[in-house]
Amino acid sequence: MTALKGVYLSDVLDLAGLYARAFEPYSETLTLAQPEAVVDPEAITFALAWKPAPEAFAPYPNLRLVSSIAAGVDNILSCPSLPPNAQVMRLRDPDQAKEMAGFALWHIIGWHREMARYGDQQRAGIWQRNPYHPASDIRVAILGFGLMGETLAKSLLALDYQVIVYAKRPREVVPDNLTIVCEADGKLAAAGGADIVVNLLPATPETIGVLDAELMSVMAAGGLLINLGRGNHLVEDDLLAALDERHLSHAALDVTTEEPLPPAHPFWTHPAIALTPHIAAETPPGRLTRLVAREVERARCGKPPLGLVDRVQSY
Amino acid sequence: MTALKGVYLSDVLDLAGLYARAFEPYSETLTLAQPEAVVDPEAITFALAWKPAPEAFAPYPNLRLVSSIAAGVDNILSCPSLPPNAQVMRLRDPDQAKEMAGFALWHIIGWHREMARYGDQQRAGIWQRNPYHPASDIRVAILGFGLMGETLAKSLLALDYQVIVYAKRPREVVPDNLTIVCEADGKLAAAGGADIVVNLLPATPETIGVLDAELMSVMAAGGLLINLGRGNHLVEDDLLAALDERHLSHAALDVTTEEPLPPAHPFWTHPAIALTPHIAAETPPGRLTRLVAREVERARCGKPPLGLVDRVQSY
Repeated sequence: MTALKGVYLSDVLDLAGLYARAFEPYSETLTLAQPEAVVDPEAITFALAWKPAPEAFAPYPNLRLVSSIAAGVDNILSCPSLPPNAQVMRLRDPDQAKEMAGFALWHIIGWHREMARYGDQQRAGIWQRNPYHPASDIRVAILGFGLMGETLAKSLLALDYQVIVYAKRPREVVPDNLTIVCEADGKLAAAGGADIVVNLLPATPETIGVLDAELMSVMAAGGLLINLGRGNHLVEDDLLAALDERHLSHAALDVTTEEPLPPAHPFWTHPAIALTPHIAAETPPGRLTRLVAREVERARCGKPPLGLVDRVQSY
Repeated sequence: MTALKGVYLSDVLDLAGLYARAFEPYSETLTLAQPEAVVDPEAITFALAWKPAPEAFAPYPNLRLVSSIAAGVDNILSCPSLPPNAQVMRLRDPDQAKEMAGFALWHIIGWHREMARYGDQQRAGIWQRNPYHPASDIRVAILGFGLMGETLAKSLLALDYQVIVYAKRPREVVPDNLTIVCEADGKLAAAGGADIVVNLLPATPETIGVLDAELMSVMAAGGLLINLGRGNHLVEDDLLAALDERHLSHAALDVTTEEPLPPAHPFWTHPAIALTPHIAAETPPGRLTRLVAREVERARCGKPPLGLVDRVQSY
């Protein structure tokens, strides 16, 4: 078989600069070119895409498979030139899921055990043990039960936290001690009474704004909200109100509606918000190219990608 | 059977105040009294002890079982009046082990992902993603493979960290992907090349000062040392030297040789030391009394305690 021919399509990242070298070992499976270097657009059947320009897909009439460079595909599905019949895939990277779980764990444990308070005490020269609840009294709701949600749930259960998960689809196999809710109002049911809500939902038209005043209001008073999904999952003013009313005690935001976050945005200086620049988890080039090459091999054998996205459900 | 008669023995804690109410449900198994309320010292066969005074055990000729209130028994074994033939037990509390693991995880993930640096960036208004190694490149050495070490090892493996454990005794069953070293110089072998060393050893004559210049010198440059054992495991001046030479980048200390740490001690203000006041894990009263009552029931049936300490090995 000859290698599949692909194109890099991004309006914001130099995908060739990031990945070309890491794709070299897979040159018998897949060759990728920058759009300006494509001689025969009709031969292109694959695209690696991230925030493509509106007309990015237009020159390639025979695209069969479009891959994201991450777990999210929202910026690809929303591209008007995306061919209606192309398969879209996201990365299913178990290692990235572990990284995401670790990142969430850090926020959860730090909040639960008041590590910031102990930092303050050290700076003030105070040796004082503060009472705390055992992990089994702390209820963590995870919104989204893909690879990331499941990995986080297992890590939390191993540490004795209560875990309740919202998943859109029911699952046949559920880890021991895990509560899973799938009904239409499942997000609220999961968040109800939770001390901590971790958002790991995909960004779809249905999930935009899911972290709103109503969801925050059903959480236990004094809770922690962690957004690791997309910035537009969060209604930012609702979060500020919940923090200012002290209904929530803290928020950890790895994503924001506008990235980079504009300098004047109140999140930068809010004492109850921990802000990170979309770093919770990533797939480094060597791992990305291995995962993509494996999916392309599957496609060449007529198998659907493991990361195939349902374009109706948008994830 | 009548209840076993016990006594509270501590020079520093009001054990009756802490635990008497929580022991009430077990009054048919065990009754405990303050020393001054003991009418017949010869009837006392059990002691709950923590930092007992040197002569604390002397009045009780028939002590058969002495229980710590924690995983450590160093302060009991070192008491000169401890009867040579009494069984000594420590708490084996799986929930406390999970808490300890979570506490260590927080330090490990925070160091690995440079969470303090991101806090600084937020305060400076800087949106910047910093490169980092995947967890699979980070090597964590755990000294001690009791309940706590094993729980931490499993949590770290689930997040893809490399884990190597030093255990005094070989084990028949070892989790997948875990490297375990048991030879005489195993502590150094485990720490060799490690980015992170977590000390969870019991305090015994053999382990005092284990965290010394030699052990730190074999760690990977720029590493993190976490001491969750006892303060005297650490040679404090050696740590200060390793930090000042930048061979280590950071230390997290939950225990110190003198507790509370004296106000003038350099650990309080050292920028590379995170100090916490011996809070990593505890067993709350309700859990302690349940565990102790279960051990007393076993003793009444002639079974050895699950937390029986080998008085020769001192743990």
